[in-house]
Amino acid sequence: MRKAKQVNSDASSLRVIPLGGLEQIGMNITAFEYEDSIIVVDCGLSFPDDDMLGIDLVIPDVTYLKENIDKVKGIVITHGHEDHIGALPYILRELNIPIYATRLTMGVIENKLREHNLIGTTKRKVIKFGQSINLGQFRVEFIRTNHSIVDAAALAIHSPAGTVVHTGDFKVDYTPVFGDAIDLQRFAEIGKKGVLALMCDSTNAERKGFTQSERTVGKTFDHIFQEYENNRLIIATFASNVDRVQQIINSAYRYGRKVVVEGRSMVNIIETATALGCINIPDNTLINIDQLKNYPDDRIVIITTGSQGENMAALSRMASSVHRKVSIGPNDTIIFSSNPIPGNEKAVTRVINELEKKGAEVIFQDVHVSGHACQEEIKLIYALVQPQYSIPIHGEYKHRKAQAGIAKELGIPKENIFMLESGDVLELSEEQAVKAGKVPAGAILVDGLGVGDVGNVVLRDRQHLAEDGIMIVVVALDSVTGEVVSGPDLVSRGFVYVKESDELMDEARELMQDVMDSCVSRGMTDWGRIKNQIKDTLGDFIWKKTKRRPMILPIIMEV
Amino acid sequence: MRKAKQVNSDASSLRVIPLGGLEQIGMNITAFEYEDSIIVVDCGLSFPDDDMLGIDLVIPDVTYLKENIDKVKGIVITHGHEDHIGALPYILRELNIPIYATRLTMGVIENKLREHNLIGTTKRKVIKFGQSINLGQFRVEFIRTNHSIVDAAALAIHSPAGTVVHTGDFKVDYTPVFGDAIDLQRFAEIGKKGVLALMCDSTNAERKGFTQSERTVGKTFDHIFQEYENNRLIIATFASNVDRVQQIINSAYRYGRKVVVEGRSMVNIIETATALGCINIPDNTLINIDQLKNYPDDRIVIITTGSQGENMAALSRMASSVHRKVSIGPNDTIIFSSNPIPGNEKAVTRVINELEKKGAEVIFQDVHVSGHACQEEIKLIYALVQPQYSIPIHGEYKHRKAQAGIAKELGIPKENIFMLESGDVLELSEEQAVKAGKVPAGAILVDGLGVGDVGNVVLRDRQHLAEDGIMIVVVALDSVTGEVVSGPDLVSRGFVYVKESDELMDEARELMQDVMDSCVSRGMTDWGRIKNQIKDTLGDFIWKKTKRRPMILPIIMEV
Repeated sequence: MRKAKQVNSDASSLRVIPLGGLEQIGMNITAFEYEDSIIVVDCGLSFPDDDMLGIDLVIPDVTYLKENIDKVKGIVITHGHEDHIGALPYILRELNIPIYATRLTMGVIENKLREHNLIGTTKRKVIKFGQSINLGQFRVEFIRTNHSIVDAAALAIHSPAGTVVHTGDFKVDYTPVFGDAIDLQRFAEIGKKGVLALMCDSTNAERKGFTQSERTVGKTFDHIFQEYENNRLIIATFASNVDRVQQIINSAYRYGRKVVVEGRSMVNIIETATALGCINIPDNTLINIDQLKNYPDDRIVIITTGSQGENMAALSRMASSVHRKVSIGPNDTIIFSSNPIPGNEKAVTRVINELEKKGAEVIFQDVHVSGHACQEEIKLIYALVQPQYSIPIHGEYKHRKAQAGIAKELGIPKENIFMLESGDVLELSEEQAVKAGKVPAGAILVDGLGVGDVGNVVLRDRQHLAEDGIMIVVVALDSVTGEVVSGPDLVSRGFVYVKESDELMDEARELMQDVMDSCVSRGMTDWGRIKNQIKDTLGDFIWKKTKRRPMILPIIMEV
Repeated sequence: MRKAKQVNSDASSLRVIPLGGLEQIGMNITAFEYEDSIIVVDCGLSFPDDDMLGIDLVIPDVTYLKENIDKVKGIVITHGHEDHIGALPYILRELNIPIYATRLTMGVIENKLREHNLIGTTKRKVIKFGQSINLGQFRVEFIRTNHSIVDAAALAIHSPAGTVVHTGDFKVDYTPVFGDAIDLQRFAEIGKKGVLALMCDSTNAERKGFTQSERTVGKTFDHIFQEYENNRLIIATFASNVDRVQQIINSAYRYGRKVVVEGRSMVNIIETATALGCINIPDNTLINIDQLKNYPDDRIVIITTGSQGENMAALSRMASSVHRKVSIGPNDTIIFSSNPIPGNEKAVTRVINELEKKGAEVIFQDVHVSGHACQEEIKLIYALVQPQYSIPIHGEYKHRKAQAGIAKELGIPKENIFMLESGDVLELSEEQAVKAGKVPAGAILVDGLGVGDVGNVVLRDRQHLAEDGIMIVVVALDSVTGEVVSGPDLVSRGFVYVKESDELMDEARELMQDVMDSCVSRGMTDWGRIKNQIKDTLGDFIWKKTKRRPMILPIIMEV
């Protein structure tokens, strides 16, 4: 591994530009640029942080792609998870770029495009593992990997400046449930020819050892089906984890149970997987939820969404007794075949508590394996690929930093390891690697139909409203004399019960009366100044009385 | 263990009434009633759930105590953590009840009472381990246990109807850092004489095995001090974990470092512990934070609050570069000597990411042991106490349920195990145990100075405001003709940037004009109906245009 020299930027180098997915986890998208060609890898969305009140989802800022649309040859997708494909409908609405992906990945994308009426206008091509596509100056090869969704791919991105290997989300599963194991030989072969940079999944880089095979979960299911042979079984997992669903169906078939699939997103993906031959469901195994009543509890397993405690998902609705077809009771055994994603722990616990209060037994430990590589798997990929440069991707800063540590341990010089931020432009060639400026990048908030119309000011206002509510002061002034002809009236929301605070509101109203009197008697006509007087006086008064700071909104009408 | 017979309620039975701490974790408080006597065990507060917007803290509803104040003999406290003492200032402001607690526990309580100006009016008595106090018909004995704060006690509550053993929060530490190990002999002795009910800590009832001794963390500190001998060390832990602080100081002393304690709550408790002889600080070890600059990095360890990622705590301020005395750099090693409490995972991760971005190394695994008993310790206490009835306490429903499972395994009949809710009255005697109705109980929300004035309506409004903001429609009507003399004007906050939505707002204003015109032309004078028209029409319009539902607030003024 050669050491990067810090020389001047070079026109014939490869530019790697992450446009998202670093500060804002999930929103994975990276542009690769060489001379007149740009390709994009993945196009994910992210879910809002706690402080993004009312925001539905977050998508990447693709200003750079818009400004260079003539160069953009295609979007290459590694696998069909929301954090890698979710922003496609938003981006494709503005930019018409062809998409390249493997079979199931494309199936999932097509569902999404149909939903957004983009299926007719978007060029698409399904790529097989081992196959390459030429996109301008680039040749991109799809390499089979394993992950918690079928048909996940790593990419070898060949450019005149050298090859970058991008793992996507991956693990090493020597005994996958569907399809073959990760193509380690091909990683080795490409490595042998020389790889400029490795961009490797960091999600589990803090975890020692090796991620267990998906098949181990199948064995656990068999044990559970044996132990709870008299109970109705309800198993929650990620909608997109087709292999997991396959294994539940296998156990159900072995133990003579019928399977109900519940939750729209799960029904959709299983239909797609079935159509593409990525899941094997024996005849007469699936039944409709309406047929539940025709079978005793011990002949049924329900596979459902809601393993993350999501409010509106099927399992949460069952737990809170608002599901129309399934009501939970003491003969139910509910299995969480998932771990809570950081931030969802409390929501998951809430659902578990509710289920247990209804008398159900809940199993939530050791019925899941991760879809991401742990430390030993990451080392394996480095050993096969032997990259000159390391660019840790996928994961929070601390995860990527952990991978940087691994890379250093493996002998990659510190100055050849790059912790990038969204928008960084990294120029790579065999001779050098330099951060060469920034392009626009970052998060665009989506709220309802609005894309990007909720910014910091609106979020700050929502935060303020959420904390202590709002108090509105309305007053009508005579347009000629400037005198008060009606009000000041006070209205509050989210502050205190008005009934319980009659006295406070009366006092506040009198105070506002005084403020208006003094403004009028001083001949104040500048509405801005009057409003400030109202804000300051009422704000101080409320703070002194309650130690709260509701938003104070003065409205003056001219009559 | 006898089986409870379901016979009629009996005047001479003991009534156990949890007033909090079951649905709302943390807010621990239980009343014990026998004929004319009531005693209260603990008086904790809880922190708000995510959906309690703007709420500062949550305290228990003590209506039952107020209504029976003549019977209430005293509050007995098990240990000095917020979830066991935090509501005292609020309750004591209304009810003057004497407090009984061990030395350090009382020290921490007294700090709190001083802060709230209640120190002069509250009767207090410090109790030694092994000592009993008579409170009406009750005799309460304090038994030494171990926990993550010094001087934690279990209680043997003797009544004419029998004895209840209440463990408080506890673990079994055979080699505690300060003081003696839990008094297992006394548990056995009391058990031998016959115990009616055991109320045992459930926090770790899902975890197998035995909680490690606090001393194991001391060894880990020594290793860290050795490995990072050239770095500045910053160690974050719970302010109240005096033993943890003691061990850091021991390592610092051994390795020749000076100690800075940072964070108000930690400084307070260490002062109290020092004054009471619960911590041993060698001379010339502690230095003031202002002296930091006089020592090189490798001669310093900073002990700080903020291990839970709390926004305003010292460590978070260091991480976000707003701490006035400490700035983080590549020569810092930061140790989280704590695990994230469920719900705090994301906040902790955010702080870790920020620290690592500044180049610091962060250690956050395996530098902590729990203060709560795991399954084998829980079994040990059951084996020693051999209670007739089991009442799992402390922990969420799923934790308490896990303890119920342990109790069943140990041979306690199912019908002798009680999963209580706040407000449940459990009548106990050797002959029977029956749930005998409910008393008022539950959570009171505290927001600023307001105790209980924020209820569901206000929270719902805050939630609504947080989601999509507010849109206000003001219109002035002539008091005689009912005609519009000004407006309708629209003002929004937390909805969208007004600038970006000029067109939308213009359309909305025209629509409101139409609504008012039609109301006036139809001679509508009922303001309620006019307001509903505004709400419905504007709500539909905004939803159709934006798929958002801001709160719509019509205000009509009469001129």
